[in-house]
Amino acid sequence: MSIGCNHTIHARQHHFDWSMAHRPVTMIAPGETVEFDVIDSSGGSITPATTVDQLDALYDSSGVPLTGPIAVDGAEPGDALKITILNFTPSGWAWSAVTPRYGILTDQFREPHLKIWHYDRDCQKPAMYSDIAKVPLKPFPGTIGLAPGKPGIHSSLPPYSSGGNLDVRDLSAGSVLYLPVETAGGLLSVGDTHAAQGNGELAGTALESPMAVALKVDLIKDARLKGPQFTTPGPVSRHLDAKGYHVTCGVSPHLFEAARMATMQMIDLLGRLHGVSPMDAYLLSSVCGDLAISELVNKPVHVVSLYFPRIVFE
Amino acid sequence: MSIGCNHTIHARQHHFDWSMAHRPVTMIAPGETVEFDVIDSSGGSITPATTVDQLDALYDSSGVPLTGPIAVDGAEPGDALKITILNFTPSGWAWSAVTPRYGILTDQFREPHLKIWHYDRDCQKPAMYSDIAKVPLKPFPGTIGLAPGKPGIHSSLPPYSSGGNLDVRDLSAGSVLYLPVETAGGLLSVGDTHAAQGNGELAGTALESPMAVALKVDLIKDARLKGPQFTTPGPVSRHLDAKGYHVTCGVSPHLFEAARMATMQMIDLLGRLHGVSPMDAYLLSSVCGDLAISELVNKPVHVVSLYFPRIVFE
Repeated sequence: MSIGCNHTIHARQHHFDWSMAHRPVTMIAPGETVEFDVIDSSGGSITPATTVDQLDALYDSSGVPLTGPIAVDGAEPGDALKITILNFTPSGWAWSAVTPRYGILTDQFREPHLKIWHYDRDCQKPAMYSDIAKVPLKPFPGTIGLAPGKPGIHSSLPPYSSGGNLDVRDLSAGSVLYLPVETAGGLLSVGDTHAAQGNGELAGTALESPMAVALKVDLIKDARLKGPQFTTPGPVSRHLDAKGYHVTCGVSPHLFEAARMATMQMIDLLGRLHGVSPMDAYLLSSVCGDLAISELVNKPVHVVSLYFPRIVFE
Repeated sequence: MSIGCNHTIHARQHHFDWSMAHRPVTMIAPGETVEFDVIDSSGGSITPATTVDQLDALYDSSGVPLTGPIAVDGAEPGDALKITILNFTPSGWAWSAVTPRYGILTDQFREPHLKIWHYDRDCQKPAMYSDIAKVPLKPFPGTIGLAPGKPGIHSSLPPYSSGGNLDVRDLSAGSVLYLPVETAGGLLSVGDTHAAQGNGELAGTALESPMAVALKVDLIKDARLKGPQFTTPGPVSRHLDAKGYHVTCGVSPHLFEAARMATMQMIDLLGRLHGVSPMDAYLLSSVCGDLAISELVNKPVHVVSLYFPRIVFE
């Protein structure tokens, strides 16, 4: 629990879709701080006691629960919310899953897989993946956004120009996020908190973990942003990079296919180097492997590279 | 000049296309070292004296000159070359250009632009972009590859599963690259050396710079790789990350379009923060901005984020 936030929004105050018609839970003044208590992306259906055979029945794909929304006094379309990410109060447990519904290799991983993690709540020690791998932690909200400016109900699964399910792993403590306001009050909600994730979240889940998120919310009038942007106070990969990386390169005219190729090659490589199963390699790549676009200008072929931190196996 | 390499391949020994029919310049034994003297990607047409009005006539798009090829004794299809990147002897000058032929925003930048750089040959000091920005240096070969296994002549512009114009900016000193051998001898060539580049090379050029590249080449029998892969001995972004990043997020069902959106937002942001022109912001993003795939699993919308290092303007 963050001490001294002006407002606390409890996890039971959640919704499953974005809509400018949602009634705000509360109205805050610009400059105030808010703690959002966030339930995991399964809406509490998956617990530390869940087993893989229960997964299919529990894993609802209708949307991610979002704590909120809160309105910001005076926010109007054309403005931006400036959201300073203050700190996290992680629960100490998480789940990760491979299911046939999500991920870039759903054609190759048809059987479900579930991993329950118990991790250091201070996030200073890496989380153990059985006894084979150590995953460094860096908590962030996978979903943070404002209500889209179009009338109607909008799924919480895809992201929008006003934010949402961005899964940007560097929205960690200290980062400052700017989101375009598209409806009166902005209507800020937070969900899908992750204790760790690689750039891409390629198998579709991260360390899905309930936690509280403390934010400071300011208002910038007439900012006229076209999409989300943020500033980090320092390096973003120091938790991962000390021992270097194993990197595989996908080469294809299509960036998505290049990412798939890089991932398949990484699964082969981690199996060869460390004896991990394809399923374990795929899931570990999702929680700590980073997809980078190496080039998208050498017509007609692009390169996407998957960076797997060597520290995970050292 | 690297002291003590077993072989030196001079820049005049270059070719413009990949082909398994090319006669090797020399045959080396596995474990030997080779220095490749590499001409810039314009084939020497652009010099420090070139002006922007000459650019269109000089800038040939028929291919990148590649120093080599060299054959490795005993290399056969199914093997891999293990290429340890030893060191670079940079020339101290480079060019970068925006032209209507390359880049992800060719629809918006129709006028050519040319920047000539003079930089510290030890690459310890950043290169100055006029007096507005300091670009940290990290040399690497934009093109490094083996002859593709299909008969015929293949352009040196796109990359292949056997490598080529990968533009992977982390193939810097100390990295170890593995490339699939697809024809007898492998036929290794090197070109398109860069003194610095961001992940993506989004405007189509980096710091294009002639330099010598020293490599150690080993042979791994029966490696059966499906594409290029490499290992880095340590962190890859320490030259850029100390002051953090400004980041813009493109949100689109198409990764390429998401990258375009992130780039357009970065051009707006750098103009607002630092007063740089759209052209300068675009070119600087190409030479030091990193495109990351934040997520490609939240169907049907993806997020590509452009990370611009704040150290460049500090």
